[in-house]
Amino acid sequence: MLTSEFRWPIRVYIEDTDVGGIVYYVNYLRFIERARTEYFRSLGFAKAATFDANLMFVVRSCHIDYFLAAKLDDELQATAQVISSKGAKITFLQRVLRGKEQLCAGEVVIACVDRHTLKPQRVPKLILEALEDV
Amino acid sequence: MLTSEFRWPIRVYIEDTDVGGIVYYVNYLRFIERARTEYFRSLGFAKAATFDANLMFVVRSCHIDYFLAAKLDDELQATAQVISSKGAKITFLQRVLRGKEQLCAGEVVIACVDRHTLKPQRVPKLILEALEDV
Amino acid sequence: MLTSEFRWPIRVYIEDTDVGGIVYYVNYLRFIERARTEYFRSLGFAKAATFDANLMFVVRSCHIDYFLAAKLDDELQATAQVISSKGAKITFLQRVLRGKEQLCAGEVVIACVDRHTLKPQRVPKLILEALEDV
Amino acid sequence: MLTSEFRWPIRVYIEDTDVGGIVYYVNYLRFIERARTEYFRSLGFAKAATFDANLMFVVRSCHIDYFLAAKLDDELQATAQVISSKGAKITFLQRVLRGKEQLCAGEVVIACVDRHTLKPQRVPKLILEALEDV
Repeated sequence: MLTSEFRWPIRVYIEDTDVGGIVYYVNYLRFIERARTEYFRSLGFAKAATFDANLMFVVRSCHIDYFLAAKLDDELQATAQVISSKGAKITFLQRVLRGKEQLCAGEVVIACVDRHTLKPQRVPKLILEALEDV
Repeated sequence: MLTSEFRWPIRVYIEDTDVGGIVYYVNYLRFIERARTEYFRSLGFAKAATFDANLMFVVRSCHIDYFLAAKLDDELQATAQVISSKGAKITFLQRVLRGKEQLCAGEVVIACVDRHTLKPQRVPKLILEALEDV
Repeated sequence: MLTSEFRWPIRVYIEDTDVGGIVYYVNYLRFIERARTEYFRSLGFAKAATFDANLMFVVRSCHIDYFLAAKLDDELQATAQVISSKGAKITFLQRVLRGKEQLCAGEVVIACVDRHTLKPQRVPKLILEALEDV
Repeated sequence: MLTSEFRWPIRVYIEDTDVGGIVYYVNYLRFIERARTEYFRSLGFAKAATFDANLMFVVRSCHIDYFLAAKLDDELQATAQVISSKGAKITFLQRVLRGKEQLCAGEVVIACVDRHTLKPQRVPKLILEALEDV
């Protein structure tokens, strides 16, 4: 499975910055999660993280490399692209862009789990089909 | 001085919530700051918090009352409305709305200070004029 | 009711700062919440915000005035002091100190609510008695 | 180079949680940064991120795997252990523990850069020597 790259605009606010005068690196993870959420929303799954009374997605790994720093008021784009899915897991390639510059990039793996037991559950067929239809 | 109410759309993401299942109350302050920033941007002051090499705005007080809680995925509106300005200070009335419901409201006072000494400085005439022209 | 002032040490990390080179003003609310939480913990209520299966505390208002800014690596003290309690509400005087300097101060009102309906409930007698015993 | 593992206690507050009832996964990066900062402080470098007027550290990559979730009020330990250093870079193995449970673990690479140009600079000998002396 390889979906096309979904892009979501992000504006850098003071809340995102740190004393170094740049975006606090941890906050890029917030930006790319917004892209994942809006990507799911665009597929009709409004509550991506909580799409079902019994299931939810949790993050299993984040492998992010940083290349360039964003600054206050920058207009960025956070991306989400599914590159594989197997069993309970979906793997995303995610990036943060400023125009043609790539500020950071990496892979995020999310897993579908039972909301109460937190045990892995197969990604629902409905979601896989929606991803494949894109 | 009483400007019209500026409104800025806010989507609630997982990053904004807490274990209570609602938006962490501290985060409404981030939402209303985005409204102030975008309000200044709409007036032509792109870097509201840092609009000049020598001056910046800092927050002097936040008096916020909370009425209703927002939840994941809610579509909100954060507002900014200047209700007075004197010397170094500008006072905003700010609210967070969900449709016709008012979730929180209060006053935020910001002060113009010298970037290096942090001493109060008169709000630049250019900004006061832009506010009055609205 | 007027309890003595509880103090909790806070170290300023990069995560707390912003592009202005100082602590992002919103984060003082996180600091004083830690003081409230640790104050309740010191009274034997380990889960202050969620101390009971059916009740929790929510914040009704924050009225904070800012006087001086904290910087990276500063050692601060956040305080919590109950100044009144009535019905569902407890009012705290809270401050953030750096040595003898007062960086910010204000009142925070929390309310006891039903966890599910979010309707106000009397503060449990057990908590009121613990506050009065201090 | 392989230093011993430095450990720093972390208490989970409401600010750290999300609507899933667990610690928001992004916040583990804040926890392990506190461990890096305190590790440097323990070596005599009080301002780890800003240890010199001309140099600072930035994060080049974060590769984190998540195994178990922390909850409100949990007492955790964030760790920092230098596993290699070359040129401008220092590589840390970092973990978040709850007693004997490992909640997450991964590698964080930081780079020493010129504060103004953001160009890589060799890690100062003074820091390398301090790391080797441990």
